Amino acid sequence: MRPALILSASLLSFAARAESGYDAWLRYQPVEYRGPLPAAVVVEGDSPIVASARDELIRGVRGMLGRTLRVESRAPAEGAIFLRRTGSGSSDGFELKAQGGSIQVVGTTDRGVLYGVFALLRRIALGESLANLDDKQSPFTNVRWVNHWDNLDGSIERGYGGRSLFWDNLHARTDLTRVRDYGRLLASLGINGCSINNVNANPRILASDFLPEIVRIADALRPWGVRTVLSVDFGSPQTIGGLSTFDPLDPAVADWWKAKVDEIYRAIPDLGGIVLKADSEGRVGPSAYGRTHADAANVIARALKPHGGLLLYRGFVYDHHMDWNNPKNDRARAAVENFRELDGKFEADAVLQIKNGPIDFQVREPVSPLFGDLEKTKPSLELQITQEYMGQARHAVFLVPMWKETLDFDLRVRGETTPVKSLAKGGIIGVSNAGLDENWFGNNLSQANLYGFGRLAWNPDLSPEDIAEEWALLTFGDNPKVLDVVDRILLTSWRTYENYTGPLGLQTLTDITGNHYGVAVEASERNGWGQWHRADEEGVGMDRTVATGTGFIGQYWPEVARFYESLETCPDDLILFMHHVPYTHVLHSGKTVIQYIYNSHYDGAEAVESYVNEWRLLKGLVDERRYNEILAQLEYQAGQAEVWRDSVTNWFFHASGIADAKGRVGRYPGRYEAESAQLQGYKVTDVTPWEAASGGKAVACASSNCSATFSYAGQAGWFDLRVEYFDQNNGAARYRAWLNDQFIDEWTAADHLPTQKIDGSSSTRRTVRGLALRPGDRIRIEGSPDGGEAAALDYIEIVEQKK
Amino acid sequence: MRPALILSASLLSFAARAESGYDAWLRYQPVEYRGPLPAAVVVEGDSPIVASARDELIRGVRGMLGRTLRVESRAPAEGAIFLRRTGSGSSDGFELKAQGGSIQVVGTTDRGVLYGVFALLRRIALGESLANLDDKQSPFTNVRWVNHWDNLDGSIERGYGGRSLFWDNLHARTDLTRVRDYGRLLASLGINGCSINNVNANPRILASDFLPEIVRIADALRPWGVRTVLSVDFGSPQTIGGLSTFDPLDPAVADWWKAKVDEIYRAIPDLGGIVLKADSEGRVGPSAYGRTHADAANVIARALKPHGGLLLYRGFVYDHHMDWNNPKNDRARAAVENFRELDGKFEADAVLQIKNGPIDFQVREPVSPLFGDLEKTKPSLELQITQEYMGQARHAVFLVPMWKETLDFDLRVRGETTPVKSLAKGGIIGVSNAGLDENWFGNNLSQANLYGFGRLAWNPDLSPEDIAEEWALLTFGDNPKVLDVVDRILLTSWRTYENYTGPLGLQTLTDITGNHYGVAVEASERNGWGQWHRADEEGVGMDRTVATGTGFIGQYWPEVARFYESLETCPDDLILFMHHVPYTHVLHSGKTVIQYIYNSHYDGAEAVESYVNEWRLLKGLVDERRYNEILAQLEYQAGQAEVWRDSVTNWFFHASGIADAKGRVGRYPGRYEAESAQLQGYKVTDVTPWEAASGGKAVACASSNCSATFSYAGQAGWFDLRVEYFDQNNGAARYRAWLNDQFIDEWTAADHLPTQKIDGSSSTRRTVRGLALRPGDRIRIEGSPDGGEAAALDYIEIVEQKK
Repeated sequence: MRPALILSASLLSFAARAESGYDAWLRYQPVEYRGPLPAAVVVEGDSPIVASARDELIRGVRGMLGRTLRVESRAPAEGAIFLRRTGSGSSDGFELKAQGGSIQVVGTTDRGVLYGVFALLRRIALGESLANLDDKQSPFTNVRWVNHWDNLDGSIERGYGGRSLFWDNLHARTDLTRVRDYGRLLASLGINGCSINNVNANPRILASDFLPEIVRIADALRPWGVRTVLSVDFGSPQTIGGLSTFDPLDPAVADWWKAKVDEIYRAIPDLGGIVLKADSEGRVGPSAYGRTHADAANVIARALKPHGGLLLYRGFVYDHHMDWNNPKNDRARAAVENFRELDGKFEADAVLQIKNGPIDFQVREPVSPLFGDLEKTKPSLELQITQEYMGQARHAVFLVPMWKETLDFDLRVRGETTPVKSLAKGGIIGVSNAGLDENWFGNNLSQANLYGFGRLAWNPDLSPEDIAEEWALLTFGDNPKVLDVVDRILLTSWRTYENYTGPLGLQTLTDITGNHYGVAVEASERNGWGQWHRADEEGVGMDRTVATGTGFIGQYWPEVARFYESLETCPDDLILFMHHVPYTHVLHSGKTVIQYIYNSHYDGAEAVESYVNEWRLLKGLVDERRYNEILAQLEYQAGQAEVWRDSVTNWFFHASGIADAKGRVGRYPGRYEAESAQLQGYKVTDVTPWEAASGGKAVACASSNCSATFSYAGQAGWFDLRVEYFDQNNGAARYRAWLNDQFIDEWTAADHLPTQKIDGSSSTRRTVRGLALRPGDRIRIEGSPDGGEAAALDYIEIVEQKK
Repeated sequence: MRPALILSASLLSFAARAESGYDAWLRYQPVEYRGPLPAAVVVEGDSPIVASARDELIRGVRGMLGRTLRVESRAPAEGAIFLRRTGSGSSDGFELKAQGGSIQVVGTTDRGVLYGVFALLRRIALGESLANLDDKQSPFTNVRWVNHWDNLDGSIERGYGGRSLFWDNLHARTDLTRVRDYGRLLASLGINGCSINNVNANPRILASDFLPEIVRIADALRPWGVRTVLSVDFGSPQTIGGLSTFDPLDPAVADWWKAKVDEIYRAIPDLGGIVLKADSEGRVGPSAYGRTHADAANVIARALKPHGGLLLYRGFVYDHHMDWNNPKNDRARAAVENFRELDGKFEADAVLQIKNGPIDFQVREPVSPLFGDLEKTKPSLELQITQEYMGQARHAVFLVPMWKETLDFDLRVRGETTPVKSLAKGGIIGVSNAGLDENWFGNNLSQANLYGFGRLAWNPDLSPEDIAEEWALLTFGDNPKVLDVVDRILLTSWRTYENYTGPLGLQTLTDITGNHYGVAVEASERNGWGQWHRADEEGVGMDRTVATGTGFIGQYWPEVARFYESLETCPDDLILFMHHVPYTHVLHSGKTVIQYIYNSHYDGAEAVESYVNEWRLLKGLVDERRYNEILAQLEYQAGQAEVWRDSVTNWFFHASGIADAKGRVGRYPGRYEAESAQLQGYKVTDVTPWEAASGGKAVACASSNCSATFSYAGQAGWFDLRVEYFDQNNGAARYRAWLNDQFIDEWTAADHLPTQKIDGSSSTRRTVRGLALRPGDRIRIEGSPDGGEAAALDYIEIVEQKK
């Protein structure tokens, strides 16, 4: 018996697993059989990665076609699937070719073979014929990495899919099955590197006695061709090494980095490299010794170079104690100001890792001008898969259309066509932060973002439509009705989210100094973090023009700068990012800014309602568990979209004093404020920020049981009752609802939303469908607080019943 | 607030429950809305049963139509659903009537109201219009009961759906939620009584300090109109009462029964009555004092009478130490012989509870002649819902067609048309034995038997086709493809099971002195239990003719007796129950007996294969969990059907010496016996009975790891590999399968089949689908024993791959 074949053992039991999202797009469900299939797989060479390729091929064919390929060492007369590598080239490319009764899967590297197998299996899953197979692919870049912001204690900074796959309690997890399975997901997309700890790095990652923990993780990822990458703390020579300094120009410091890197490579010969965040958001860096970012990057890059490792230096460096009173200050300028002068000072193997936009993963930003500014230093493009400012996996937001706009944006460098993708020679890197939740991200639909990231990193020329369609088919099967609904939700979701959170380049109007989740329009203002929209009574927007503003626009090459500088050409979607304008400014669309803000928020909230209604049509067409999970997520999102809609529109109504031309803002037919109800035990409380609650107020229960009674004053008919309550994360309050004397619903506010407060992040909707109401009916909501949670209520809303 | 309305609280959360079979046919899934619906429910009167009716109506309408009915105390102008009882009559009947904008649900009793609500909800679920609703129904009988054979320790005699709903560790369960939910299932069918402990009764059931435990169960069943019934031990006056005797004619014994029954009724005023099994299978009875069954029944019936309770006396009395050498002995005669003379001696409220056939719930029996023999004493018909001799919920067997044959069988009493249903004036009683398994029976399809039993007990004129269609639609939804497959499986399943277990009236050819499950053709012979088929070299069948046999046939009224007595008219299905014939006897079908036995077994096994293949077409159309559970059950059954097929046909080939005209029996292309394989560690062992293993032998592993290697000698192609192994219940052996050096499958034999032995009950099939085989290939099965389980193998079989 050849021991390597035993590997497949655990793979064979996959069929019994229920649909939970765990298998993501690699479900290998039975598909219609198309023509003959070779009976054998013949593998040339013998590496763990090629063994993974062989086992995956067997697993996939077995799942989809119900056949177990024979592993043969020599070519059988009747043909086979051949897996082999040419050994020439380093690009991880592959070729798939049907020849006679055989199929050739030829990779330029072991990874290429593996990626070829995944591509072959994807073709089968998508129902494509293998008959005239002839496909040759090379990846766009050699650096197709994900970053994880996982802390060694098992928490994840900006992670929304459960605790860390890698770490628990300051050690690598005992059971690394999930890491292996994650490696497989990454490999299926051609992702070949993964940083396994937070860029806000715990120095302990470099301690010698910690190295065996990293080795275990690297061993789990290696069979899938995923190289382990570490994030380090720049102060490590001092904190871990015991040196008196971490000055990058000190020879002892350089020696220490060299020795440390050599030590790591002895244990992990294929380490991908090191990610460094320095002099940013409280991290120590070269500025402590008056050194440059290049000095910092180079001292580590030189240590990595002999081993073929890369140093990724994060370009996310800015001053978060900026004077907000100075209208010329602008965080958006920081990247260019910090790094332009250093172009050419970085070692060849040091890559500058730059976020797509100049701020920080907002719902819409222009492309970072720094990409167009580097001639000699290689930049890599950092995208964020985890939905930090994008609804944190509680809102469905498919990010591929946004990334695609970034990749295709033409920076007109030296007046030439220069899309961003042509500049990102240092790679494409995504912040993934998948976690232990069974579906990896806490939201089944969020898987599409990792999928899309990987596909784009391999080939940035793919279209969002093609990626959405592929993912939907692989993830939910080929029912046309399902595909139709999933595609529509995915492809409109970013615009929808933008519409209700921050249109026109306002950025995400959230609590930017806190949880980055719920609505808080002014959170960005009057603080040093520099993420300002400058809305006041007169107008709104951050003037970044050269003429009168911060001059940020001047960081672009002239054609682009002219485009943004002029109100004539600046696109509506970024107008308030680039300009300060009066509310009455008329957009290209013909609407005023203020009316656009009103309209877009109503459009956005309505779109999410339509997602819910369309998804409900898929009952029975999507497996029950995922159907229910996605329905619950969309219903929650629909409630939150209404909170955002009302908060932002009221805030701007209050600021501008200009009424909504359609008469919606401030008028809510069917809404009954809790503060106006007949209260027993409940006390009226002001909500901060005021716009996060309807009327600026809520009611909170200070005793063990309270009630709010509303008297219905509308027509008789069938209605849905919506109860807007606050699900704080420091308790599990109970609610019960009564219609006159009839008990109609009960629920527990036990979600773990990112706030302890009564605010926009905790505001949550409960819907009781199908109530027959008559004028004079009393609707009573009872609340029982728990822990710090006050069973608070904002309002009830009575809307005509949805069919 | 009216407290009664709080009841609905727990009902409102049902929607979140995943499809697990728990909700059975009461799933209340959304259905297309048909026309207007009254907004309110108006309830007259106030009883827990009517409150259940009201809450169920609200729950059902909410689930199916997404609307919550208003509970009103007075009729609203626009109409309502009115629930009320007439108070006249005691038959639990109801009337449903649409009137203007209202719907009237009028019951003759509180139960009638509840049953009317369930009927109304069933109409909605089945997609029937309510527009011209006008339906009046009365139940066929007032005694529509289920019996439970639950022991007070929590085990269930002949229960296959987990442990007892009622009992655990000699007490009523702490949490009786399942009992309440079971009461709801029963009520939905109109079942109005439930005996809660085994007929082989623990005397403790009557202890005074135990009464509070029964009260708790009765309280849980009462809101659903289900009366609690107790099984008692006839020796109780002595064991529990401390009397020196339990002689039913002793006045002290009569007084004791009266006082005991009075005591119970003080605590449970609506007790349904008492079930008594006496002088049977080791139970004490009146014979101890030379008294009659009537004496025994009457002493308890007289105690029950003032309270309106019934005494059900089980007619299942026979001698299990019968001399098998005497060809005139016949257990089938026992019922008539024991009870005919007592006709008229029973009190009016004592009912004789008679099993459908003269033996014991065999796969096919004639109707018990005792039904035609009682003029004055009321019989009730006992049916078995739990599948004791019917595959024990591991085989899909829908029993309604069989019950329907019993109910409709014309006994020609006094030459008049006399179907059994016209005689079962004492009621229709089913042995249910549902348990704590989430789907109640251990097999989702077995739920159809409880459903069908209840529907027939309410209306024996319903057809099996209508019942199957109703159940399938309520249980799996209205997809036509699903309904088609489910109906076909249900309606052919009894014949299929009969075909492979015991055709022609042979009865179930199982281990009748043991587990009543696996194949054991001779287990019925040469012992005192009297369940003989008398197969030998010459012929087969039990001669029960008047002319030459035991005379059992003479117990029927003359027309029926003549019908069975003559080989000319005796139907093929019962020929071997009534006659001993040579194997070459030609049946009405034109086949010889021996060829019919061969054919039917091959037909039966092939039918189960077709169930598997048809069920597989439903993937994605039935919720995943139930789809997978039923697929696994059917695949297991397909393997067992082949074991039965081979065992029975080989046994009869061996006995008769007559070859199968189609050349199948004894020739198994593609089969490789384990005893002929190249064995490492495995030892050849004889299997008892010999027919339970292919070739009479298996291999068992006596060390920690063994292997059997087979050399493939067939053509090249794609095949399924079947491994027939033995899953004993005293360990969890591991198996691994290899093709040449390639690992292809592994599994654990961890099922809990009813045997510790290597025999027909433990024989189990594992299928590895889709292997490309080439002449000379080596297939190796490795086994690792565990506990008492020997990792035994019978054979492997290589069959062309199913598409």
